[in-house]
Amino acid sequence: MGGNSFGNLFRITTWGESHGEAVGAVIEGCPPRISLSSEDIQKELDRRRPGQGMGSSPRKEGDRVEILSGVFEGMTTGTPISLLIKNEDIDSTPYEKIKDIFRPGQADFSYQAKYGIRDYRGGGRASARETVGRVAAGAIAKKILEQERIGILAYTTELGGIRAERIDYEEIEKNFFRCPDRDAALAMEKRIEEVKRRGDTLGGILEMIIKGCPAGLGEPVFDKLEADLAKGVMSIGGIRGVEVGAGFKVARMLGSECNDPLGPEGFEKNDSGGILGGISIGSEILIRVAVKPIPSIFMEQKTVDHSMRPVVLRIEGRHDVSAIPRIIPVCEAMAAIVLADHLLRQKAIGRR
Amino acid sequence: MGGNSFGNLFRITTWGESHGEAVGAVIEGCPPRISLSSEDIQKELDRRRPGQGMGSSPRKEGDRVEILSGVFEGMTTGTPISLLIKNEDIDSTPYEKIKDIFRPGQADFSYQAKYGIRDYRGGGRASARETVGRVAAGAIAKKILEQERIGILAYTTELGGIRAERIDYEEIEKNFFRCPDRDAALAMEKRIEEVKRRGDTLGGILEMIIKGCPAGLGEPVFDKLEADLAKGVMSIGGIRGVEVGAGFKVARMLGSECNDPLGPEGFEKNDSGGILGGISIGSEILIRVAVKPIPSIFMEQKTVDHSMRPVVLRIEGRHDVSAIPRIIPVCEAMAAIVLADHLLRQKAIGRR
Amino acid sequence: MGGNSFGNLFRITTWGESHGEAVGAVIEGCPPRISLSSEDIQKELDRRRPGQGMGSSPRKEGDRVEILSGVFEGMTTGTPISLLIKNEDIDSTPYEKIKDIFRPGQADFSYQAKYGIRDYRGGGRASARETVGRVAAGAIAKKILEQERIGILAYTTELGGIRAERIDYEEIEKNFFRCPDRDAALAMEKRIEEVKRRGDTLGGILEMIIKGCPAGLGEPVFDKLEADLAKGVMSIGGIRGVEVGAGFKVARMLGSECNDPLGPEGFEKNDSGGILGGISIGSEILIRVAVKPIPSIFMEQKTVDHSMRPVVLRIEGRHDVSAIPRIIPVCEAMAAIVLADHLLRQKAIGRR
Amino acid sequence: MGGNSFGNLFRITTWGESHGEAVGAVIEGCPPRISLSSEDIQKELDRRRPGQGMGSSPRKEGDRVEILSGVFEGMTTGTPISLLIKNEDIDSTPYEKIKDIFRPGQADFSYQAKYGIRDYRGGGRASARETVGRVAAGAIAKKILEQERIGILAYTTELGGIRAERIDYEEIEKNFFRCPDRDAALAMEKRIEEVKRRGDTLGGILEMIIKGCPAGLGEPVFDKLEADLAKGVMSIGGIRGVEVGAGFKVARMLGSECNDPLGPEGFEKNDSGGILGGISIGSEILIRVAVKPIPSIFMEQKTVDHSMRPVVLRIEGRHDVSAIPRIIPVCEAMAAIVLADHLLRQKAIGRR
Repeated sequence: MGGNSFGNLFRITTWGESHGEAVGAVIEGCPPRISLSSEDIQKELDRRRPGQGMGSSPRKEGDRVEILSGVFEGMTTGTPISLLIKNEDIDSTPYEKIKDIFRPGQADFSYQAKYGIRDYRGGGRASARETVGRVAAGAIAKKILEQERIGILAYTTELGGIRAERIDYEEIEKNFFRCPDRDAALAMEKRIEEVKRRGDTLGGILEMIIKGCPAGLGEPVFDKLEADLAKGVMSIGGIRGVEVGAGFKVARMLGSECNDPLGPEGFEKNDSGGILGGISIGSEILIRVAVKPIPSIFMEQKTVDHSMRPVVLRIEGRHDVSAIPRIIPVCEAMAAIVLADHLLRQKAIGRR
Repeated sequence: MGGNSFGNLFRITTWGESHGEAVGAVIEGCPPRISLSSEDIQKELDRRRPGQGMGSSPRKEGDRVEILSGVFEGMTTGTPISLLIKNEDIDSTPYEKIKDIFRPGQADFSYQAKYGIRDYRGGGRASARETVGRVAAGAIAKKILEQERIGILAYTTELGGIRAERIDYEEIEKNFFRCPDRDAALAMEKRIEEVKRRGDTLGGILEMIIKGCPAGLGEPVFDKLEADLAKGVMSIGGIRGVEVGAGFKVARMLGSECNDPLGPEGFEKNDSGGILGGISIGSEILIRVAVKPIPSIFMEQKTVDHSMRPVVLRIEGRHDVSAIPRIIPVCEAMAAIVLADHLLRQKAIGRR
Repeated sequence: MGGNSFGNLFRITTWGESHGEAVGAVIEGCPPRISLSSEDIQKELDRRRPGQGMGSSPRKEGDRVEILSGVFEGMTTGTPISLLIKNEDIDSTPYEKIKDIFRPGQADFSYQAKYGIRDYRGGGRASARETVGRVAAGAIAKKILEQERIGILAYTTELGGIRAERIDYEEIEKNFFRCPDRDAALAMEKRIEEVKRRGDTLGGILEMIIKGCPAGLGEPVFDKLEADLAKGVMSIGGIRGVEVGAGFKVARMLGSECNDPLGPEGFEKNDSGGILGGISIGSEILIRVAVKPIPSIFMEQKTVDHSMRPVVLRIEGRHDVSAIPRIIPVCEAMAAIVLADHLLRQKAIGRR
Repeated sequence: MGGNSFGNLFRITTWGESHGEAVGAVIEGCPPRISLSSEDIQKELDRRRPGQGMGSSPRKEGDRVEILSGVFEGMTTGTPISLLIKNEDIDSTPYEKIKDIFRPGQADFSYQAKYGIRDYRGGGRASARETVGRVAAGAIAKKILEQERIGILAYTTELGGIRAERIDYEEIEKNFFRCPDRDAALAMEKRIEEVKRRGDTLGGILEMIIKGCPAGLGEPVFDKLEADLAKGVMSIGGIRGVEVGAGFKVARMLGSECNDPLGPEGFEKNDSGGILGGISIGSEILIRVAVKPIPSIFMEQKTVDHSMRPVVLRIEGRHDVSAIPRIIPVCEAMAAIVLADHLLRQKAIGRR
């Protein structure tokens, strides 16, 4: 209910501000006797860590996870798992100067309006740093999915107007942008460099494929699988759209085109994106999300201070040019959490 | 937790199958001493009722709501409000013949996979009839919003490839499609007739504007306002995509374009769609959703029966050509429920 | 969240006022393919129905349950089950005269303070009539427990100062008070008659035994089995105390007396009441509850009206002398709901 | 849902095992701009810390709380508050020898049955050490209550058969047992010493009074104030009974005795314990709980190992003789959390 928890049976609660002591997550409902080590979690944290390449912010986040509870002799015990990641290499100086100014495109104005107080350092709770807790928790969800042979694959299909023209799964892990088209990845690199020089930022589109999901997950009528997936990814800062299967294209399709025929081997195409009536059908689940440009641009911006007096703002500090590719493991984490939760929910009522 | 409840402080639980006795909703958490009559609810139900015009299914649903509890002498009492709408004019005969066949694009396969049993008559719980409960509950949410002068306006921007080229609010209630462009509405009419003749169906796009929403609604980091709105609309059958503000267009915007500058009067444009950091900013909230074509087409379709044996299916019965415009009050209802819930949540922690 | 729902995976929402149209319940999370008929529910409703004997209110409640959804061809479908029981033989006249007076021991004052409005007819939502929904929902929970061979047995151990001196299970269903001691039952009958003549009312104590509960149910640290059972029964109007196993007697026990030794066949006594660390151990679960006298006495009472002006009140109408024995099936229902919920929760994380 | 969270709007999640790295709590829903320092929390932790006097375990728990998030410049920000308390002075050696043995009266058997794995060191999650998180979170709830001038006072009324014969509030903080009767406190001291010599342990009874609670808190019909209070305290390890107001005495009262008459100044006595119909009435709220003897006795006990083979067990290690008085701040914490939660819930729907 507090807005910082997500999931039902598999439930995560995250906490922490960008420039506070630490960030973390508590995971409830993880089944007992699943093998879990800090390496399992570290691996995912390393995928979202900054400073790995181009277009990326130079802040050094070591992001070493500590497992404080819920694991005994390498196995989960069924009790809550508390994860802690210290905040390191923090420099709040650039934020002191602008602590009374609302940065455009950021949550400064809305947090002030809602709470009447805000930790302005590094964006506080509204910082992308918050996603560390999601990724750490998602790593545990992925362990549950692994047991059921469910895998999640996410990649960049568009960045700054450059689109992947082909989907080569082999290519994804080979380039910085996790783009399944090598040529597009090269063009994205150039685009990022060019925009970075001007102090501007870029948006893009991601695609996520969930493989191996059994039929039967999803709880109509409100906790439909696509509804929970949509909420999961839309709760990530900077996501402005989400679609499933054919997505917005359905608006121009006929029913006779959109329906997926069934044959003895199952569904013969997959415009449904693997979900019908809110329940998985055993096909691949396909989700696409739109990522807005990072609002921290190094250009003059028109805005106001807390007294609504006009200000010309020029942000300093360290920021990425695009939330892509670092947002990819965050999207995967949210999908993993939704699926782990629905797996457990289905077990509760499931056929024996 | 059961998947048939939605909301936290303002919480609805819906129930009912298409060809069962009745459908209904229980509304918890409605504040006391709000004036409420069955007419308030009937008005909204009438907006989603079939048989009102072209492209619409001839099933006669009187859809008279009965308020069974929670209202005393015309006022809410703070106790749960139970609403019941009888199912009338039911003919299950067409479904008898196909009870062992999975209709493409429908939830037949997935319900069978999940529950191992399904009420095949009229699609059972997976029928659009289920949305009656949402609309009835949404009417009560709207009463709460009225008190705060928050209004929701939804309209069709695209149907079967025909797009509204202009947004004339005055026009919306004047045509069947609730399309804000009269010429587009006429073209949509023709498109529907033509497709109906072939037994096919159409998809489209809706837009929703929420006016008068105060700044401060939304509960980061998971129950962000756009996340709950996305879940709300994505939980409606047939919705395949949702976007907020600039939506998928953000993928091709620069940060310097996407950020909304602030002036002494507030935000100077609204690409954020009225939400920053998951919290409303006092601007109009803008949501767009993609509606897939109704899967019940009157053409031969390739499918299988419960034993996965090939079947050629030709559906009979009564069906709309498009979920638009009847899905409009359903989308509005879900948005109203999300907003009423967040209003109450903000009151709980709110500034005094 | 609204206070009218109970349970997590097996979740009930009840609604309805004493003199409104009807009372009812919506049950979410009932597993599919459990055989369920209205007789299964009627049987339990008949056990709590008034007018069955001595000390009982003459209001004629037919209490015929209607199953409106969630059951198809005699089997649950996994969709929400909506139950409706009409309110019949209502006479609100006696309440008109006292609508501005707070009856002592009743919820009149507190509802007015909380909501600023109340349906004064028959006590509105605060009436014992509300428990009809609990009993109806509990009947479904019992069907789930039956499948696992879990049974609940409740009986009167004390009424108006008369105590059962022996526990003869065979006797329970043979007397009106469901008292396991025939002699005590006869004494209780006399006590009731005597007190009724004076217009006064009586309290008592119930005991509940849950048989066949497997080890492993309960979710520490907050949703311990005894914690949920305590909440379940304490939420019933008129219950003022609850204890598990040795209960309040533990205050005077030594650790060496209180601990239950274990032998090869399991626990060798049961002072724990079948629960250790919040989790069932496979022994019988034992709960005891204190029931206060019904506050509707036919004697002059000192009280005030809505303006806090003194009034001497003499209640008219129809009322039982004791909530016992009609509260017994209500207690059983709450226990059944708690157990069904925890059974499903354990299945979700359970050992395979 | 995971069993390690409690509350709705004010919601706590605790984590941690007795001999793990640390224990802690995450608090969601604390309103913004409440002054909060680590001293506020430390003060309460110090009240439950061991090693303070007689009958108390010699384990040295420094129990220094660290606030990791949610507080900025001494004020809450509305974001989740993460609290961490390291586990210090741990010696797991005594537990190594008995890791395959079920200690009577403990949760060893039930955790093994439920999860198939358990952290046997110091009782793991089932240890009283778990209550550190409750007390820390309760300290924050108390800050909210302070703002509304609500106070909680708990004290010992019975220990090892010695009963307080008078209630002198001034005396409570002056003796080790927080007993409101100085003579009884002296007798309790002797009783503890005597029993300690034999290696045995003692139970007792606590009373809690909530002062200053406004009328209107509580959410019928399931989240009644006494139901949530009952759940809150019954979820604490070792509590076996709870009663409100006259409690189990109601069983022998007449309605004419039990009803509290109302006069122009309000209720003229308080057998209701300050709650009617599940809602506070503005009078003092009175709760009484039964605490069982600590099961860790230093005497030979009959039990079995994991293979259900008979074993004679003699426990070593460090343990209190009675959970009293250290359980007192834990009970207060749970009551504070329930009240803070209901305060916020009432604000959400409250009269303006």
